[in-house]
Amino acid sequence: MNRQQLFEHIRKKKSFLCVGLDTDIRLIPDFLREATDPLFAFNRQIIDAVQQYCVAFKPNLAFYESLGAEGWTSLEKTVHYIRRQYPEQFIIADAKRGDIGNTASLYARAFFEQTDFDAVTVAPYMGEDSVKPFTAYVDHWVVLLALTSNKSAGDFQFLTTGDGKPLYEHVLTASQKWAPSDQMMYVVGATQASKLQDIRRIVPDHFLLVPGIGAQGGSLQDVANFGFNKQCGLLVNASRSIIYASRETDFAGKATAAAYALQQDMEMLLYEHKLI
Amino acid sequence: MNRQQLFEHIRKKKSFLCVGLDTDIRLIPDFLREATDPLFAFNRQIIDAVQQYCVAFKPNLAFYESLGAEGWTSLEKTVHYIRRQYPEQFIIADAKRGDIGNTASLYARAFFEQTDFDAVTVAPYMGEDSVKPFTAYVDHWVVLLALTSNKSAGDFQFLTTGDGKPLYEHVLTASQKWAPSDQMMYVVGATQASKLQDIRRIVPDHFLLVPGIGAQGGSLQDVANFGFNKQCGLLVNASRSIIYASRETDFAGKATAAAYALQQDMEMLLYEHKLI
Repeated sequence: MNRQQLFEHIRKKKSFLCVGLDTDIRLIPDFLREATDPLFAFNRQIIDAVQQYCVAFKPNLAFYESLGAEGWTSLEKTVHYIRRQYPEQFIIADAKRGDIGNTASLYARAFFEQTDFDAVTVAPYMGEDSVKPFTAYVDHWVVLLALTSNKSAGDFQFLTTGDGKPLYEHVLTASQKWAPSDQMMYVVGATQASKLQDIRRIVPDHFLLVPGIGAQGGSLQDVANFGFNKQCGLLVNASRSIIYASRETDFAGKATAAAYALQQDMEMLLYEHKLI
Repeated sequence: MNRQQLFEHIRKKKSFLCVGLDTDIRLIPDFLREATDPLFAFNRQIIDAVQQYCVAFKPNLAFYESLGAEGWTSLEKTVHYIRRQYPEQFIIADAKRGDIGNTASLYARAFFEQTDFDAVTVAPYMGEDSVKPFTAYVDHWVVLLALTSNKSAGDFQFLTTGDGKPLYEHVLTASQKWAPSDQMMYVVGATQASKLQDIRRIVPDHFLLVPGIGAQGGSLQDVANFGFNKQCGLLVNASRSIIYASRETDFAGKATAAAYALQQDMEMLLYEHKLI
């Protein structure tokens, strides 16, 4: 999926919501834990429940890997299910990989060939040759960590470099040369909304993947005001606030309601900013 | 395994060799590709062939993930095989993970509970709360990326910060407060041997995991001269030069020879530095 197609999808759905499939075997409703494949059984119901109100899904790899090979099977089934049922959805592997060139190529193969993701999150610490192999796949995306939403994000990302700029700005500037904005997005946490204006000056055209709404406390309005560009340019992720809106038998209905509420806010913001 | 036990193991084996299991389905001998589980069939023979001359094994996760759930099964069987047959071996998951706290906890569970690794490589970009959850497991290790061996390592790792120091030195300094030297190692590429003296001043007691010998061109002698500490303090990794020493039916024998040659060099260096 290219940038224009993603924008069209956002306009059609009147939403820039990404639903994070952080599916934790310990947190899904009790009655589902007896299913043959509990993670997939839960995901399938969540996907059906929210797909109308979102444009993207983002499985978080850690939750699947913590169950070993069985978890990977659940992940593969989840991605195939979305592809088959809702082919317009954008699917992001939240994997935060990053390794030397020949290894990065293997990760690209894992996510873009072995499983059918559109995008994968990548950590920048090892530099260009750890990122480039992912860009060999046309219409597939690298989502590079720039400014994350966690408490310790500042430990290194805010370090001031010799020219007075923080590290994350160097990541944004340098990495733009590695891939066109049709293949590169950046992770910018919603908890860092005050920084979004500066970030938009450096990467005016790129899509930003924004976690940290909901459970982590970021404001959707701030993110939209400071982060929108001419093609929306935002995918805002919510995970726990949607998929665990209820932990009883009504979990799917409650997930629909939570996704719908966010979509309604997003529709209003898109309308206010003349994007729909 | 704690630091003292690791040193004892090194003294017993007269080796600080780590064998990287970068097992690529495209590179293993043709006749093995017809086995039920080709990756495990190859690994088992390699492990038996080299275990006498090494102290650690390091499966690189990308190579297994590129085969999906099947690859994870091969990985799990490999780790269980080493544990059962050679319980004294130190096993590192070369995964380069790094994510927010609750996700990092899941990765720790994936590698320290679901599979039985001793250590996992972690990327520092997201800071302390992305690293700490791994240290909740006593006698298990975080191997934090500091200065890597790839061509683009300098893109960010060499960036000079406001106080005149490169980023990787900040990573070394800050992260020492996150865990004791019994639970933290650092990745320092052999191609950066000239930097090892400076690094040893900052982390005199820590073990360093050193990739980049062999295929990537680093010198074992330089690494030892600049990197040894009182407990050896080095695990030097070789992957391709051992496991693909031959791609014919004699691959196991050639792997033994390649590992033995490195062990002999290591024994001489340990002896010269009075570590055995």
